[in-house]
Amino acid sequence: MRRLSPIDVAFLLLENRHQPLHVGALALLTPPEGAPPDFAAGLAERLSHSHIAASPFDRRPFKRLGMFYWEDDPHFDLAHHFVHLALPKPGRIRELLAMVSRVHSAHLDRAYPLWRVYLIEGLEDGRIATFMKIHHSVVDGVSGMHLLIKSMAETAEKSAIMPPTWEIGSGLRPKPVLHKAISSLDRWRASAQSIPTVLRELGTSVKHARADHPDIVTSLRAPRCILNQPITASRRFAAQSYSTERIKAIGKRLSGTSNDVVMAMCGGALRTYLSDLHALPDKPLIAGVPVSLHRDRRHIEPGNAITFMLANLGTYVADPIKRFEIVKASMDYNKARFEAMNQAELLAYALGMLTPGVLNMRGSWERMPMNVVISHVPGPRSDRYWQGCKLDGLYPVSVIVDGLALNITLVSRGDQIDFGLIACRRTLPSVQRLLDHLDEELDALENALV
Amino acid sequence: MRRLSPIDVAFLLLENRHQPLHVGALALLTPPEGAPPDFAAGLAERLSHSHIAASPFDRRPFKRLGMFYWEDDPHFDLAHHFVHLALPKPGRIRELLAMVSRVHSAHLDRAYPLWRVYLIEGLEDGRIATFMKIHHSVVDGVSGMHLLIKSMAETAEKSAIMPPTWEIGSGLRPKPVLHKAISSLDRWRASAQSIPTVLRELGTSVKHARADHPDIVTSLRAPRCILNQPITASRRFAAQSYSTERIKAIGKRLSGTSNDVVMAMCGGALRTYLSDLHALPDKPLIAGVPVSLHRDRRHIEPGNAITFMLANLGTYVADPIKRFEIVKASMDYNKARFEAMNQAELLAYALGMLTPGVLNMRGSWERMPMNVVISHVPGPRSDRYWQGCKLDGLYPVSVIVDGLALNITLVSRGDQIDFGLIACRRTLPSVQRLLDHLDEELDALENALV
Repeated sequence: MRRLSPIDVAFLLLENRHQPLHVGALALLTPPEGAPPDFAAGLAERLSHSHIAASPFDRRPFKRLGMFYWEDDPHFDLAHHFVHLALPKPGRIRELLAMVSRVHSAHLDRAYPLWRVYLIEGLEDGRIATFMKIHHSVVDGVSGMHLLIKSMAETAEKSAIMPPTWEIGSGLRPKPVLHKAISSLDRWRASAQSIPTVLRELGTSVKHARADHPDIVTSLRAPRCILNQPITASRRFAAQSYSTERIKAIGKRLSGTSNDVVMAMCGGALRTYLSDLHALPDKPLIAGVPVSLHRDRRHIEPGNAITFMLANLGTYVADPIKRFEIVKASMDYNKARFEAMNQAELLAYALGMLTPGVLNMRGSWERMPMNVVISHVPGPRSDRYWQGCKLDGLYPVSVIVDGLALNITLVSRGDQIDFGLIACRRTLPSVQRLLDHLDEELDALENALV
Repeated sequence: MRRLSPIDVAFLLLENRHQPLHVGALALLTPPEGAPPDFAAGLAERLSHSHIAASPFDRRPFKRLGMFYWEDDPHFDLAHHFVHLALPKPGRIRELLAMVSRVHSAHLDRAYPLWRVYLIEGLEDGRIATFMKIHHSVVDGVSGMHLLIKSMAETAEKSAIMPPTWEIGSGLRPKPVLHKAISSLDRWRASAQSIPTVLRELGTSVKHARADHPDIVTSLRAPRCILNQPITASRRFAAQSYSTERIKAIGKRLSGTSNDVVMAMCGGALRTYLSDLHALPDKPLIAGVPVSLHRDRRHIEPGNAITFMLANLGTYVADPIKRFEIVKASMDYNKARFEAMNQAELLAYALGMLTPGVLNMRGSWERMPMNVVISHVPGPRSDRYWQGCKLDGLYPVSVIVDGLALNITLVSRGDQIDFGLIACRRTLPSVQRLLDHLDEELDALENALV
């Protein structure tokens, strides 16, 4: 029994009927050459015979005297966690995305360890898919990606003899109970004490930024728009891959990073999407960009270690190059400020973004400091295989909350960047149009540089 | 905008994270002879072109000043409500029941009208299935069954040209707003005023029954057993059909009704199930049997009109005939008492069973006056067809709540009675064993009469 960290607890407390707080990833996979038609059924059968779960797949939340702890599930029941699904005909990507949208809308049962893996057959092109869903109190984007990558190998042969994802786990032995409980208590105290400092610091930095560089971050209070409404319990998921080479080339030409290009693409796509709906604010949209606090990339523990920086998306500018420059300046400025904060201040800042108490200190969801979350998670650099199948796409499915009806998360892999857009189905009409607009923005940036 | 009745409101208020309160029905259907292999896909495509919803499929709940109203959904979105699913291979009934268990575990989104219809293909025997899920605040068992039957016809030909279930609706024009609001307010007041009387009456009747007929209802506080624990959010659904002829024949021989036989079967099956788990209480289990208050069978309005009577299941008796006699005596006694109550008293009694305030008056779920709910809903007497397909089975999927981890609901049709058992997956191990035990009880009753 180990106590949850303050941020992990926040994800349990902030969850409600219309706001489940689990994250997911959709993997598109090509079965090995010459695989029989019942390959998926055979794989499902084989995986279902597993009876072991490694950390963090073995633990469920447990509440005592108002505190949350992790405990082992004494009756681990794989049939609850591993689910075999099939797409209805015609089995297009469209049907797959609709299925993921529905599955992602449903809550995880807190009586069980907070995850599920779906193996999905029936794609018309013969590929299969997996969708892994795991609670945000257990992993963040980076540690979740780490779990997935650990379950894959660099060759089909090696991957075919690997145990299922949940038997591999994070590969870390949990620390002794007492030590962990004390250390998370200490972290909580240190973080809580520094909240006022950090909020003040955040306010100051934004005020300075506004005075010195009006184009960088113009306001802590992002302009209201349709992205910032209460959400419903229904989700719409859209996903697509973009060429790493094209994005890198643009970044190089403009002396920026691939991430700057991606942010500029998102800004442009949102500008077009909102313009079409006559809902584009005059002031620039502000993106919250999660920053990983996982220090050691070789030993990534489960749990949350993230905070946000705020980036100006330049949505009031029509010219794609100018928009890129605004985005880049804003990202550079924020990176410099973040590097100056220490670990406790960063943790407190993350808490300030997330826990209900602190959200109330600031008002409510109506005064969110950002319009949209755009998150960039590093994926595997080279080809990966899972259970003998080649990984063709790894699309993240993140969370949305009241006041933030859209989340764009991307995973950069070798030669492609996989975008996953998750939105409230009711609040934001036809979110899949954003994929077309992202395409258009990539074209526009390239054309402007010719 | 119409106000919800007090009982309908109770189903919204009592719903929580681990206790969704929608009911469902699984229909097994045989496609017309010579139907093409893509029959289900074609049907799904055709039904998805509907854009109309009749009452009660058009309304969603709306809360203002602490009161619940129904309002029309201004952006009716069929893609949210009608879902095409496929079973994974091998497509046995087992896979179908697992799918229904999962789908039934997920909440309905209150931002939309509170229903979903799933069309499921991929059964290995070529049949298809539908699963309709609708919130208990919208319908009870009888009015839900009424909606289903209205969407079916007595011949395949007629059914093939009928509009989808949600376009047909209840076939009732909603009453004018003001009238309805006043009438439900009046009913609420009348019912609330008679609650104390009815609770006293209920206590008295049970006390008398205990003194005069110790075998009828031995205690208002049913014995505690594993059926009466807090539940988790995960469900297990089991379903099977039994021959009406066999059940009727037993009833006739023992001068009872088919319902008495079914109740005795349930009592015997629960006795075996709990004995095997070393969890059978010495005192008899008490079943809560919902009684419909829908007076006019030809004009069944949506909404709830149910209450419960309590029946002794005779689970401490090994002899199946003796058990039958105890069940029958208890059912007869209760029917007589219920006939003496007026409509307002019955409504108040129903409220007393359901609303949180009144549940608190009695303590908590730990002091539920029953161990299990066993509900019998009349289905169509003759063959029915839906969209050209013959109805082979219509299995009800009801709700469970904290303290009542099992619900057995049955639909009597022409020549078979379709049982649907819904249970908490974690609290009650291997609920599907109850189906075997029901079989054994039917055999035992027949053998005892040879």
